[in-house]
Amino acid sequence: MDGTTPRPAPRTRSWWGWGWTDAHPDDAECTAMGALLPGTLARPLPVPGVRDLRIGAPAVQPPPSLAHLVTADPADRASHAMGKAYRDVVRALRGRPGRIPDLVARPADEQAVADLLDWAGRNGTAVVPYGGGSSVSGGVEYRGDAHRAVLSLDLTGMRRVLEVDTTGRAARIQAGALGPDLEAQLRPHGLTLRHFPQSFEFSTLGGWLATRAGGHYATGRTHIDDFVQSMRVVTPAGTSASWRLPASGAGPSPDRLFLGSEGALGVITEAWMRLQERPRHKASAAVAFHDFHAALGAVRDLAQSDLSPANCRLLDPGEAALSGAARDGGSVLVLGFESAHEPVDGRLARAVELARSHGGRHDGSTGRDGGAGGTPDGDAAVGAWRAAFLRMPYLRDGLVRMGAVAETFETAATWDRVPGLIEAVRTEVAAAALKATGHPATVNCRLTHVYPDGAAPYFTVLAAGRPGDEVALWDDLKAVAGEVLHRHRATITHHHAVGRDHRPGYDLQRPEPFALALRAAKDALDPRGILNPGVLVD
Amino acid sequence: MDGTTPRPAPRTRSWWGWGWTDAHPDDAECTAMGALLPGTLARPLPVPGVRDLRIGAPAVQPPPSLAHLVTADPADRASHAMGKAYRDVVRALRGRPGRIPDLVARPADEQAVADLLDWAGRNGTAVVPYGGGSSVSGGVEYRGDAHRAVLSLDLTGMRRVLEVDTTGRAARIQAGALGPDLEAQLRPHGLTLRHFPQSFEFSTLGGWLATRAGGHYATGRTHIDDFVQSMRVVTPAGTSASWRLPASGAGPSPDRLFLGSEGALGVITEAWMRLQERPRHKASAAVAFHDFHAALGAVRDLAQSDLSPANCRLLDPGEAALSGAARDGGSVLVLGFESAHEPVDGRLARAVELARSHGGRHDGSTGRDGGAGGTPDGDAAVGAWRAAFLRMPYLRDGLVRMGAVAETFETAATWDRVPGLIEAVRTEVAAAALKATGHPATVNCRLTHVYPDGAAPYFTVLAAGRPGDEVALWDDLKAVAGEVLHRHRATITHHHAVGRDHRPGYDLQRPEPFALALRAAKDALDPRGILNPGVLVD
Repeated sequence: MDGTTPRPAPRTRSWWGWGWTDAHPDDAECTAMGALLPGTLARPLPVPGVRDLRIGAPAVQPPPSLAHLVTADPADRASHAMGKAYRDVVRALRGRPGRIPDLVARPADEQAVADLLDWAGRNGTAVVPYGGGSSVSGGVEYRGDAHRAVLSLDLTGMRRVLEVDTTGRAARIQAGALGPDLEAQLRPHGLTLRHFPQSFEFSTLGGWLATRAGGHYATGRTHIDDFVQSMRVVTPAGTSASWRLPASGAGPSPDRLFLGSEGALGVITEAWMRLQERPRHKASAAVAFHDFHAALGAVRDLAQSDLSPANCRLLDPGEAALSGAARDGGSVLVLGFESAHEPVDGRLARAVELARSHGGRHDGSTGRDGGAGGTPDGDAAVGAWRAAFLRMPYLRDGLVRMGAVAETFETAATWDRVPGLIEAVRTEVAAAALKATGHPATVNCRLTHVYPDGAAPYFTVLAAGRPGDEVALWDDLKAVAGEVLHRHRATITHHHAVGRDHRPGYDLQRPEPFALALRAAKDALDPRGILNPGVLVD
Repeated sequence: MDGTTPRPAPRTRSWWGWGWTDAHPDDAECTAMGALLPGTLARPLPVPGVRDLRIGAPAVQPPPSLAHLVTADPADRASHAMGKAYRDVVRALRGRPGRIPDLVARPADEQAVADLLDWAGRNGTAVVPYGGGSSVSGGVEYRGDAHRAVLSLDLTGMRRVLEVDTTGRAARIQAGALGPDLEAQLRPHGLTLRHFPQSFEFSTLGGWLATRAGGHYATGRTHIDDFVQSMRVVTPAGTSASWRLPASGAGPSPDRLFLGSEGALGVITEAWMRLQERPRHKASAAVAFHDFHAALGAVRDLAQSDLSPANCRLLDPGEAALSGAARDGGSVLVLGFESAHEPVDGRLARAVELARSHGGRHDGSTGRDGGAGGTPDGDAAVGAWRAAFLRMPYLRDGLVRMGAVAETFETAATWDRVPGLIEAVRTEVAAAALKATGHPATVNCRLTHVYPDGAAPYFTVLAAGRPGDEVALWDDLKAVAGEVLHRHRATITHHHAVGRDHRPGYDLQRPEPFALALRAAKDALDPRGILNPGVLVD
């Protein structure tokens, strides 16, 4: 997560689950975790090999001029069949992944992307843009059979930082750069994109832009949207290149149409991104609360102050207990401050004081790590929480192997709705899980991002599964959650994209005239309908 | 500009020039100003009365059900014929305004807006949305004759703050609210939109949103785009209502499509806007520089610091002399800080120190007004500059009456291009004016907004006119300026909209695939092409 050191030894990415194969819990760990969750399996599901899947021959062959960029290797195709949502991991474990793409292409430059789109359009082949493959919303798979073939367009071959402007602190970066690689290329210039989503290791700049990713930081500069100076996007109707500008009022923003377009309007190939100096001053602390609602008040006050914490992460009692940040049944507020220019201890002290005025308890210990990257060396609660944060997706996969439901979803709402929303999600999703499985479920919440006018609650659901029927169970629980979000006018996604999994909620959220405009734009840019079909518009 | 006190006495808006009739310089002042600019007239052009214009009967009549909202009064129609750009004022003074709208409508609610659009669509009538009428880019007039009739849709009847959420610091505000009225309605709640463009008195929330207005503040929260929680927009294809959210990652932002759409995609009727607490702490200072390029370096350093000045306005030597901020041929940097929560003297002192490290000179005097509103009570240069700032449009009109060219335009560019851009605009526009008029011209520059990655230079052009041919002369000079901007990849507009005057530059700036998408969106939302024809797309 800190993006400081590229790993020297080659590691293997898991084809079926999160991240690196060597980071997954082993069978014994899985069994131990499962024992904590009533109703799970006695022993973990085996991990299937790619060769166990029946992968047919591709329905199309690339033309000779593009053949060197394209592979039909079954393992490569299988690993590009889906993202890494709970339902994806379950399907892989059960040997029933989504439709395996016919081909995987790895273009080396923009012209190759254009050529591939051109070929796909002439050959009835759907194109699914693919970055790090970490989608947790069904954003990188193909569903249905309306197209003759499916091409997974893997951008990770385009991974270079092409130019750095140190005067204006910006860089031109290819879309396929994964987080650690991107930061490693910026480091010699003393600059950082400072965008650290939980998926940082396994997601790309292009993926962040296409999904309007939210970074790790709670306030201030955290949305990738705000870092964009200009973008290049290859569409079947030509390549869109916006000018590199600090600001412009000329018509609706072209970049803002492609930000969040999730591969349905074009393939983002590169962007000039605003950078920051690397932070040199950090400070962090954890404040405990008996009363979750009092903690919410403290967080709102902090978000409306000028203090601008880098981290302002409120863990509810369940989340605090699960991560080891608290063991007394209370909530924990993890605060972190960062600056490239001056010490931040004063801001931290004022934030702690403000939290105390809402009933928060702080034992006086602080850390130097800002609560957002780096090695924990101060407050134990901060360190414990971050370690759990990075390990969470691996543990989820371990629980999935035990037949459990273990998944997260997030939203955002204005402050007036936040308390009722959190309560309703916790209560109604837990009740639905109990009813469906016969076992009590855990629904925890943390606030990941806070704004002067609202917050982004992030929920973790842990429940016994319905062995063999896990996908349908999760779809049911997700429908319950979606209904609660809609009732509270909370967004269907704050930083996890719409993909295919959130389409029902998205269709309810977006204004119908905007849907008309978006469909018209899609028809104009992708007249053959080959780009990531099923995402955003039909 | 401070928006604190609604004016009690009724004043009359000028039909031909900026603002209030009683604020225009009289004939003697005009003559005195003209004497400073070689090549202007000996005496001011007379101000024509509306009755001197030949205004025909309207080509259409509204249906009885809408008649109470619509007027055909000639004076009302004449005052809605154009905005307030130099070329508009000249045309009015010369008795040759743009096409006079057939009717002026003042809807009282959203349903009336929808009904008017519906009627206009069925009757081949173009609809030009109109807020405060302060457009300086040809945004509120009709050009050509492709439509049978023209309706000016004046939104100022919809001017109320409908709801205030003090918990989340937001308000639902009707689009027709003018700046001072809007602030007066928020003041009892201790909140402010804190958006103060130079046109504040004479522009509306809807106009700010439709043009992506930039406020008065140099850094931080100054773009109206970032204050929007949600919007309602009436289009011929239905009413678009986005959800009130602090943030969302669900697809491309619907609001960002309508922000900057300049009335071509729909009529903005209301928005939930993010508010701020009113600032209680202010401090300001002026720093002098011998060397403009050293001052640019200071400003860039400030913009890349964490100091976030509310005002960071660099006046070049000509601008500093014209406004009275400096008389020694140097540049002046006007700095202002504001906070609702804590004293800002420390930040000001650090900013002054940083400016000094670039060769800036500061005499030690500071003000308490933040350089952005309120009564000047501290630094004389700050006060002098602001008074000149607010009076500038009136003085421009006085110069126009003397036959002079007196106009402004603005742009934005990344830091690497800023010095060369400013130099090229000054040199090339002045040379073009000299060549066209035979008299030396003045082209001054100030930086109005600064960003970590660039700045927004704002240019003032003062030149002898070409009596009777002023519009063509200005169009020629604007074409020269536009060519320089394009060559430097500087935006055609940073906060003054595209309108009809900037269309050539806009068509060069926007990516062609985005233009395709925008045209498709326009066709979908406005299939009969009645909304502000000629703006943004054809």
